[in-house]
Amino acid sequence: MNFRMVLRVLGILLICEALFMLPSLIVALLYNGHDAKAFFYSIVMILAIAVPLVFIKLRNKNIYARDGFAIVALSWIIMSLFGALPFYISGAIPSFIDCFFETSSGFTTTGASILTQIEGLPKGILFWRSFTHWVGGMGVIVLTLAILPSVGAGAVQMMKAESPGLNPGKLVPRVGETAKILYKIYLVITAVEVVLLLFGGMPLYDAFIHTFGTVGTGGFSNMNMSVGAYNNLFLEVVITVFMFISGANFSLYYQMTKGSFSVLFKDEEFRFYLWVVILSIVMVTMNIYGSVFASMLEALRHASFQVVSIISTTGFVTTDFEQWPMFSKIILFILMFVGGCAGSTGGAIKNVRILLLIKIMRRELLQIIHPKAVYSVRFGKKALDERTLTEVLGFFFMYITIFIMAVLAVSLDNLDWATNIASVAACLGNIGPGFGIVGAVGNYSTLSDFSKLVLSLCMIIGRLEIYPILLLAMPSFWKRVNI
Amino acid sequence: MNFRMVLRVLGILLICEALFMLPSLIVALLYNGHDAKAFFYSIVMILAIAVPLVFIKLRNKNIYARDGFAIVALSWIIMSLFGALPFYISGAIPSFIDCFFETSSGFTTTGASILTQIEGLPKGILFWRSFTHWVGGMGVIVLTLAILPSVGAGAVQMMKAESPGLNPGKLVPRVGETAKILYKIYLVITAVEVVLLLFGGMPLYDAFIHTFGTVGTGGFSNMNMSVGAYNNLFLEVVITVFMFISGANFSLYYQMTKGSFSVLFKDEEFRFYLWVVILSIVMVTMNIYGSVFASMLEALRHASFQVVSIISTTGFVTTDFEQWPMFSKIILFILMFVGGCAGSTGGAIKNVRILLLIKIMRRELLQIIHPKAVYSVRFGKKALDERTLTEVLGFFFMYITIFIMAVLAVSLDNLDWATNIASVAACLGNIGPGFGIVGAVGNYSTLSDFSKLVLSLCMIIGRLEIYPILLLAMPSFWKRVNI
Repeated sequence: MNFRMVLRVLGILLICEALFMLPSLIVALLYNGHDAKAFFYSIVMILAIAVPLVFIKLRNKNIYARDGFAIVALSWIIMSLFGALPFYISGAIPSFIDCFFETSSGFTTTGASILTQIEGLPKGILFWRSFTHWVGGMGVIVLTLAILPSVGAGAVQMMKAESPGLNPGKLVPRVGETAKILYKIYLVITAVEVVLLLFGGMPLYDAFIHTFGTVGTGGFSNMNMSVGAYNNLFLEVVITVFMFISGANFSLYYQMTKGSFSVLFKDEEFRFYLWVVILSIVMVTMNIYGSVFASMLEALRHASFQVVSIISTTGFVTTDFEQWPMFSKIILFILMFVGGCAGSTGGAIKNVRILLLIKIMRRELLQIIHPKAVYSVRFGKKALDERTLTEVLGFFFMYITIFIMAVLAVSLDNLDWATNIASVAACLGNIGPGFGIVGAVGNYSTLSDFSKLVLSLCMIIGRLEIYPILLLAMPSFWKRVNI
Repeated sequence: MNFRMVLRVLGILLICEALFMLPSLIVALLYNGHDAKAFFYSIVMILAIAVPLVFIKLRNKNIYARDGFAIVALSWIIMSLFGALPFYISGAIPSFIDCFFETSSGFTTTGASILTQIEGLPKGILFWRSFTHWVGGMGVIVLTLAILPSVGAGAVQMMKAESPGLNPGKLVPRVGETAKILYKIYLVITAVEVVLLLFGGMPLYDAFIHTFGTVGTGGFSNMNMSVGAYNNLFLEVVITVFMFISGANFSLYYQMTKGSFSVLFKDEEFRFYLWVVILSIVMVTMNIYGSVFASMLEALRHASFQVVSIISTTGFVTTDFEQWPMFSKIILFILMFVGGCAGSTGGAIKNVRILLLIKIMRRELLQIIHPKAVYSVRFGKKALDERTLTEVLGFFFMYITIFIMAVLAVSLDNLDWATNIASVAACLGNIGPGFGIVGAVGNYSTLSDFSKLVLSLCMIIGRLEIYPILLLAMPSFWKRVNI
């Protein structure tokens, strides 16, 4: 492990974080909020710690795969710790653990909140809260494209195989270029959504907040009632469409800018994602029509918004789906595990893995019927090697195992089944709202500090697709010897 | 598919079922119950249908792998259908779907019941209800040993690797001999438990009922309060020990009869099973001591019984664990997925698979830290091939997928989360009691007919380790062409 290098890179990232706070400082100043001071102090504190780190003398300039993992894992934890400072210093959130929870939730684009009363908080603070979504969403795209492919975590290898124009596997030397292209796409999507929301009558400030929450698939709102507060069909449609867009693979949009619109429907994962969304909307609509909503259109409206909000792992809400029949709730619960596409800002297991798991399952059955036949699992036009399949299967087991272990940890709070299970599913999958106490109109404030820490860790584990954080817990990860 | 052969074998199995009803008929006659008639009619009806099947002329005497699967899958469904006759004809259970549920629950050694009042039922009927456990427990061992190995389903391959004295892989030509050895062990364990329960003061009839429930890891009792009705520490200890024994690999006992007692602790799966049991008992005891039981010994007593009852997938109960803190309930919930050992009468995912999954997970992490090193997953002294690992991983995914799909189906009943989730976990894992309405002192009577059919299917799917039933649903399974 190249500790000096790790510290130095963390220093650079902290300086970036201080810079990220500037827009929030400006917003606070514009609104004459007392929170401007909190941002100023936070920026000074972060720089005071970060600047010396950057001047650490390096003995060795190589970054090994392990160092990369350590940097990724530690940076998300440290960014969340320091990003919590404005909340704490301003007094907006009195408990530091709550501040950490809220900031992890922001950066990981989860959107789970411990706030019970959002609307009264200073404008700068709420801007920072949502801005972390935007930064986190962007960070994730760069991460999945730039750092993870070198070790071959299942979904990213899929992208490697599927994106000839944007091959992240061979892109490592030109990470900067890839990042620039993606940032541009991200910025364009952001700008378009802001404009559309303004057009729909949303105030400028709210438009930014909700756009950050949408494109980062985060879900923090500046309204207690989330998007439901506006009760505006146009705004809901815009947000639904942009949540869907943000849950799909961004490299597809890059390919589309080169003129090939057909790439979208040629992409197997995108087709699968689209079908899951359509099927879920139809089932939920049929289930809540009559039982909850008298009008079919109202049922379709709320089903569409909630389904897309959950599968894209955003977590905005327009209605209290806690009151829906169990069938609809279980569909939303299952979608919490499906999540977005590889290369999106969405979290959870991801559509490409679910699709491959179904294909593997089909092959296992065919193999039993015809033991002598040789079946391969194909994705797009390529047959995948067994190693990739084992990785995908292994990822699924790890995801479920971490889910179960976290459910056990949170169970010490002695809450009801819905809250216990859904809080973990919603945090690990980076969704935000769950069921029960942490449901659509609820929040995470009443959970114990221990549970909040466990859930914060779940958010980061889920966001980083498990491996980096799990590796930190392996003793052999820290050994200096390289085999 | 050799349909004539399949029908003929099903005929033979039905004749066996009619014979299995004779002891219950005798019990009914001994107690002068009106249920004797029900058994008599049932036996006649079954024979009337079965005997002609046996005389079907065969065009082809081969049983192919596919035929084997069809026989296994269909026989469990048909045995449950015809085994339900005495309940229906006697009027003990008025709804035929309830009768089918109760019989599937019996044969699959689940022990989930739709009965609200057990103690008033005729003695012959209750004897048959529990006898199905004993038949099902025995049947499963023979099935897994005799029929499945030819197609190489994960767990059996494990046994192949681990049981040199009783190698099912090479035993196919002498299935009869293997079966005989196992029946002997099964009979000895049964006899010893009956004697010990009598010694503990249990009436003879009750001793048989509870022994059937124990050695088959079923869990049907003739008492409304299950084993808790006796409130007798000695009986509870005996049953706890025999539940534990029945949840372990029976081939170990065969090897022990040849004098090698050390084989038990040399067996990796057994050690794992033992550790999971000990760890779970310790955690539950610590959790319920003080909060539920004032005495440490009482806490240990009930924790031990419930933990062993659930992990062995028996489902006897001595206390209403629905009242325990959530932490203990989640531990029991997790154990519902772990289940017994390969080659036991217990169900669920099985310890060997969980152990291998953990090993695979560890390897995946080590592989990332040292990308150039080659790691193999070892079981006992052997390195396992990748194909076996893929099978184990695939089995886990299929198990969870079926669990989720069944939860969705049952959710149409619009019940609470605990009941919805735990009923499926308890039926798929062949445990019996779950949480909520179907909890320790509850039952499955209030569920809809649709849910009861879904759960019956779950029991059979779980008992047959998924593949046979899933294959029935594949169109290519039924094609006559052999590739």
